[in-house]
Amino acid sequence: MLRTHTCGELRISDVNKHVVLAGWVQRQRDKGSVLWIDLRDRYGITQLIFDESKTDAALFNAARALGREFVVQVEATVVERLSKNDKMPTGDIELKVTKLTVLNTAKLPPFTIEDETDGGDDLRMKYRYLDLRRNTVREKLQLRHKMAQQTRTYLDAQNFIEVETPVLIKSTPEGARDFVVPSRIHHGEFYALPQSPQTFKQLLMVSGFDRYYQIVKCFRDEDLRADRQPEFTQIDCEMAFITQEDILSTFEGLVRHLFKNVKGIDLPSVPRMNYDEAMKLYGSDKPDTRFAMKFVEITEHTKGKNFPVFESAELVVGICAKGCSEYSRKQIDELTEFVKRPQIGAKGLVYVQYRTDGTIKSSVDKFYSPEDLNVWVEKFNAQPGDLIFLMAGEAYSTRKQLNELRLLLGDRLGLRDKNKFSALWVIDFPLLEWNEETKRYHAMHHPFTSPKREDLHLLDTDPGKVRANAYDMVINGTEVGGGSIRIHDRPTQQLMFTHLGFTEEEAKKQFGFLMEAFEFGAPPHGGIAFGFDRLCSLFGGADSIRDFIAFPKNNAGRDVMIDTPSTISDEQLKELGILVK
Amino acid sequence: MLRTHTCGELRISDVNKHVVLAGWVQRQRDKGSVLWIDLRDRYGITQLIFDESKTDAALFNAARALGREFVVQVEATVVERLSKNDKMPTGDIELKVTKLTVLNTAKLPPFTIEDETDGGDDLRMKYRYLDLRRNTVREKLQLRHKMAQQTRTYLDAQNFIEVETPVLIKSTPEGARDFVVPSRIHHGEFYALPQSPQTFKQLLMVSGFDRYYQIVKCFRDEDLRADRQPEFTQIDCEMAFITQEDILSTFEGLVRHLFKNVKGIDLPSVPRMNYDEAMKLYGSDKPDTRFAMKFVEITEHTKGKNFPVFESAELVVGICAKGCSEYSRKQIDELTEFVKRPQIGAKGLVYVQYRTDGTIKSSVDKFYSPEDLNVWVEKFNAQPGDLIFLMAGEAYSTRKQLNELRLLLGDRLGLRDKNKFSALWVIDFPLLEWNEETKRYHAMHHPFTSPKREDLHLLDTDPGKVRANAYDMVINGTEVGGGSIRIHDRPTQQLMFTHLGFTEEEAKKQFGFLMEAFEFGAPPHGGIAFGFDRLCSLFGGADSIRDFIAFPKNNAGRDVMIDTPSTISDEQLKELGILVK
Repeated sequence: MLRTHTCGELRISDVNKHVVLAGWVQRQRDKGSVLWIDLRDRYGITQLIFDESKTDAALFNAARALGREFVVQVEATVVERLSKNDKMPTGDIELKVTKLTVLNTAKLPPFTIEDETDGGDDLRMKYRYLDLRRNTVREKLQLRHKMAQQTRTYLDAQNFIEVETPVLIKSTPEGARDFVVPSRIHHGEFYALPQSPQTFKQLLMVSGFDRYYQIVKCFRDEDLRADRQPEFTQIDCEMAFITQEDILSTFEGLVRHLFKNVKGIDLPSVPRMNYDEAMKLYGSDKPDTRFAMKFVEITEHTKGKNFPVFESAELVVGICAKGCSEYSRKQIDELTEFVKRPQIGAKGLVYVQYRTDGTIKSSVDKFYSPEDLNVWVEKFNAQPGDLIFLMAGEAYSTRKQLNELRLLLGDRLGLRDKNKFSALWVIDFPLLEWNEETKRYHAMHHPFTSPKREDLHLLDTDPGKVRANAYDMVINGTEVGGGSIRIHDRPTQQLMFTHLGFTEEEAKKQFGFLMEAFEFGAPPHGGIAFGFDRLCSLFGGADSIRDFIAFPKNNAGRDVMIDTPSTISDEQLKELGILVK
Repeated sequence: MLRTHTCGELRISDVNKHVVLAGWVQRQRDKGSVLWIDLRDRYGITQLIFDESKTDAALFNAARALGREFVVQVEATVVERLSKNDKMPTGDIELKVTKLTVLNTAKLPPFTIEDETDGGDDLRMKYRYLDLRRNTVREKLQLRHKMAQQTRTYLDAQNFIEVETPVLIKSTPEGARDFVVPSRIHHGEFYALPQSPQTFKQLLMVSGFDRYYQIVKCFRDEDLRADRQPEFTQIDCEMAFITQEDILSTFEGLVRHLFKNVKGIDLPSVPRMNYDEAMKLYGSDKPDTRFAMKFVEITEHTKGKNFPVFESAELVVGICAKGCSEYSRKQIDELTEFVKRPQIGAKGLVYVQYRTDGTIKSSVDKFYSPEDLNVWVEKFNAQPGDLIFLMAGEAYSTRKQLNELRLLLGDRLGLRDKNKFSALWVIDFPLLEWNEETKRYHAMHHPFTSPKREDLHLLDTDPGKVRANAYDMVINGTEVGGGSIRIHDRPTQQLMFTHLGFTEEEAKKQFGFLMEAFEFGAPPHGGIAFGFDRLCSLFGGADSIRDFIAFPKNNAGRDVMIDTPSTISDEQLKELGILVK
């Protein structure tokens, strides 16, 4: 070892020890006759002291000549500090250096290696290896490591076997786009990178593996949104001989184990809400339950008063913002503009101010009497000082729009504290989802999700009403995991493919192996997958997943540090039997 | 849960309990009035009994109608067996079934699900999910899981951080072929799948991560040999502020931890041998040290006797096969034919029989006197009953040829017991290797390996003589891991690229980011990677890695179960901006 101790290790009890440390020059303070240097490594910072009057001149000058981020090795004696620093674990001591070796020099970094850096996003991406030196970034990856460790600890103890599934698999036309890999041996043929190990984990259940998990890279060639990555990591799990109840309790156990062992938080048992209720109360299948502000429907109490917007509305629904009755006209206008933005698409916003003096003022005073408004106020269980917002229109889209307003108000009112955690199981999802673009039903989760037996009769008559044995784990309004009880027999699987518009031939070409496997004794099974990057960022109290990935791609799917994707040689293309158009 | 217990769980102490089990029908024994069924799951086998005289007729008939591999759930009472089976953990009890539910039927499997199956390789690959049901195969993957667990336990305790490096990286023209992935967003550009995370782990050292590991998939698009896979798994590690000694002791620690905790074997401390010595004593840089049979060189004792083969030879070298002096002419001829096969390419084989009666007989009696032969026998420290084989010619190739003979004799003499383990560090590898095909030097490990400082002066005059700070872990004649101390400064790295025939521009295009990183304060660092599939197969006492991979590809790189690689749609090709030639 080029050191006897790390930079985070020495304490007052080590005084007088002769030690060797190695690390990076974080900072230099030059007081003329005394020079201090903060030496940094992954474990902490240790202060070096060079006193001109007590130090060999050559050594003193060598120390003074060091630059930021130089890599040095020092031999030194541990001494007690005169002015201690109780903010750092090594703050009681400093090192009187007797020998200094420069292990490597450093050019001036393009941004400061500090918790608060002066580097912009692009620069930090290009020099990601320098950005990773910052404590705040490294700690995020250390958190990730701990999350992975604790995930394995929990699942290992529950008899899960970690199995690696292949990365070079088969392309399927379903869902988001596959990355493909041309085969050099078989020209014109391609592998695909997995969007998830779904079919393989189901085959492992057919094989009797009983409980499988894997922390695994998955790939999706989608147009990237701000916080999506072409490669991402899942905690992927599957169990056999279970009911939905077993999955929910096992993985609620995982999430609570993680909160306990990574964050020291006792998460209460996770409540469940069915999809319909979530949509009705929050306008979202991933409600943020850190705060209430539940939807209240007053459709029936708005009719017959000649207010055309409400009169024609399928649904009139609102939320009550506690203590906001004195919002100014400007504040309310701003919220109205917010919901009218094209991304949200509402026509407008009705408000009812239940003022602190007990009077009620509304934007629809012209149509509704104080008695009418009193009924509304009661329905909302509003108190003096509260402000009610109402929206109206077609039920589904109105709820979606109100959800956006609710989240914005939650932010404004400080109800979405990153250090508070509220988890929820959303269950009983619809099996199918209507797609306006393709004008047909798609699987809401994926084609392997089992329909609820009692809803099967609706498959032909009212497919959108068929519920699935599917569930999502939602924390703080973010879907962190989702799964389902799977189909495990060929006839039902074939029925699903038919309803999803597969021809028999297509189904057989794509998933023939799975349907055949179901004929050789497939056990009842189900599973779940957690988005590991997202889960880590949630635990880290961050909005973006990017900092929780060691070497992320940018929004154009490009790694600007190594400069990829990039061109390959003509020879390589020829070997692969492909041409670039 | 669809069960209260697994099929491996019930004991005599559970008698009279009412239980629910679920699993597969392994076997049925029908004695007319009594029917036994072996119910199997991952955890074991439990015997079910149906006694016609004591069982409801419908239940009895339902049990009789079950087929192999049907998936069933039974409610039953645990009873003591009349004739116990001490070969199985559940052998003291059986289950008196009161309710039988068929969870799924099964077609007759294409091969028997038994430890010794009647299925051929191809059939078992096509129905891999059924092959995985066999205990012997599942146990191999359970061993793999345990290996991964114990690897993490050891490295976590040593302060290593597991970091996931990207899978979509940049293609490099060095070494074996990259798999590439066309970018849909950037037409004409490609990602590549990593052959190893080499540059990323080095960047993590530059970032101050200090100790990194990852159990990670790597990819190599090579022509597949019998036991290679296009995707394979490495235990990939890197450390900063270390010497070679630290790496050797840390990873010797890992291997000994695995032997102790996975196999219960106390592996002795691992001896070290330099490359030159390994070549001289075994003719191989991965000698099988389970047995001695070391090479003995007698060149100087063969000259001047007019035997042309030895007279002209750079090297005359041999091995002594203990107790083989009475080998027949036919046996010796067979060995001679073996070394003369084109794959080995020797010209012939000289033998010296030191017979049990003390006489010496040789195939070169014509040229060498009994006194000459006595000198040889002494050099080999041979005893009566031993048989010496000699080969001669150019030193390097003669050693390689003799190595093959040594391994064959080791097999023949039962000296290569799969349950015996002998580990060795081979160190001081050459930095460069001459390639006859390209007529230039290539990096023996990779271009990031550091040369020994004391040999640097030979780089221009005698490049093949420059030794590297590189090491391999060899167990039972198999290279299971290898690594090196890396270059960590730009000038040396650039020098290496120059010597490897890179133009400055090429080096910059491919590895500019790494060389630039070296300028911002790179610490001394080094690492190692273990072939995880190979390590598992070695621990499992198997020759092939294939059974230690859940879903392997065949020798043509094809997954015959899911049928990939396969064609993709014209639409997909168009999206990707490529054409198939």
